[in-house]
Amino acid sequence: MKMAQLSTTSEVPVATIKYYLREGLLPAGEKSGPNQSLYGPDHLRRLRVIRGLLEVGGLSVAAAREVIDAIDSDLGLAHTFEIAQRTVSPEIDPEALSAQVVAQVDEVLSGWHVSPENPGRLAAARVLQTFAELGQPDLSGWVPAYAAAALAVAEADLDEVDARDDRESKTEMVVIGTVLGDALFAGLRRAAQEHVSSQRYSGGAS
Amino acid sequence: MKMAQLSTTSEVPVATIKYYLREGLLPAGEKSGPNQSLYGPDHLRRLRVIRGLLEVGGLSVAAAREVIDAIDSDLGLAHTFEIAQRTVSPEIDPEALSAQVVAQVDEVLSGWHVSPENPGRLAAARVLQTFAELGQPDLSGWVPAYAAAALAVAEADLDEVDARDDRESKTEMVVIGTVLGDALFAGLRRAAQEHVSSQRYSGGAS
Repeated sequence: MKMAQLSTTSEVPVATIKYYLREGLLPAGEKSGPNQSLYGPDHLRRLRVIRGLLEVGGLSVAAAREVIDAIDSDLGLAHTFEIAQRTVSPEIDPEALSAQVVAQVDEVLSGWHVSPENPGRLAAARVLQTFAELGQPDLSGWVPAYAAAALAVAEADLDEVDARDDRESKTEMVVIGTVLGDALFAGLRRAAQEHVSSQRYSGGAS
Repeated sequence: MKMAQLSTTSEVPVATIKYYLREGLLPAGEKSGPNQSLYGPDHLRRLRVIRGLLEVGGLSVAAAREVIDAIDSDLGLAHTFEIAQRTVSPEIDPEALSAQVVAQVDEVLSGWHVSPENPGRLAAARVLQTFAELGQPDLSGWVPAYAAAALAVAEADLDEVDARDDRESKTEMVVIGTVLGDALFAGLRRAAQEHVSSQRYSGGAS
């Protein structure tokens, strides 16, 4: 199909599609004339992946390009996971973290196979450091509950990847699932908070 | 203490503290002269809350002000939860969601007391819509696993709030917990993914 039709079908404006082409998010179409290219179903699909990463996942264009490159590469799944995780995680200077909060996280993760540079390990430690600075260091019930929930979710994530047939669907699920899984969980957590909160505080507190 | 000491103690530059004062994030100090004010432990604590919301929680200044106003108000806990949730959730036009994905979310939430305008309900529906557009509509194992984990986390969130003594600590925990809980969960999920992934794919895939 031509650019105009790709735009109509995907509901993405032509100017935006051209921007994605220039930024390397969307691969070039097949040249069919001096100023014309043809696009296929792969381009349509990729456009939807891009929109999901940018609009729903909240990634920057640079971050989206990095994870899309990982889908297109022939990296193994574990490596693709690493890239997706690094891209969606804040950059954290380990030097800025106290040894105490890192030890607290490692205790919660004990028994898990997690490398020291896992971006999630540092991100979790930074959250605990913020609570410690606020004088709320005793989260001895809260953090393990989060870890247990995170483990259950990670098992479900990997089940979903394993259920895909070919390499491309698997890596796409790794990338999309890593990015959108955060948004899904945050959404469901808000709904669950309303539910639990209405059970506990109903009749007066609000 | 004077501004200079507040800056040293909090490790927040004077210019940044002045910016927070202008933006109404930090309440004014007590006037001690024509060009001088004095600040107390409450200011120090509030500065740490602000840094946590902005740097670790990734909120905008406007969003941080909104949730800080909620801490300072005499709203009930359920209402404070609502404000915190709305502030940290993306704004979603319900019209842009297909009835099908909304029904899918409502099925997962069935039995929960969740109002139709809960921002998490709509955010979850938007994630499912993105997957549906990508031709990945069958997430019949994945989404319920997320919902069960979200419910366990919400119970832990409320336990943590209930464990606080006074109203201010409770509302602070509601706000900080809502914002930083997302970051904590995302971090632990990355660590758990590495753990589960290393168990399943070790020896070749990476």
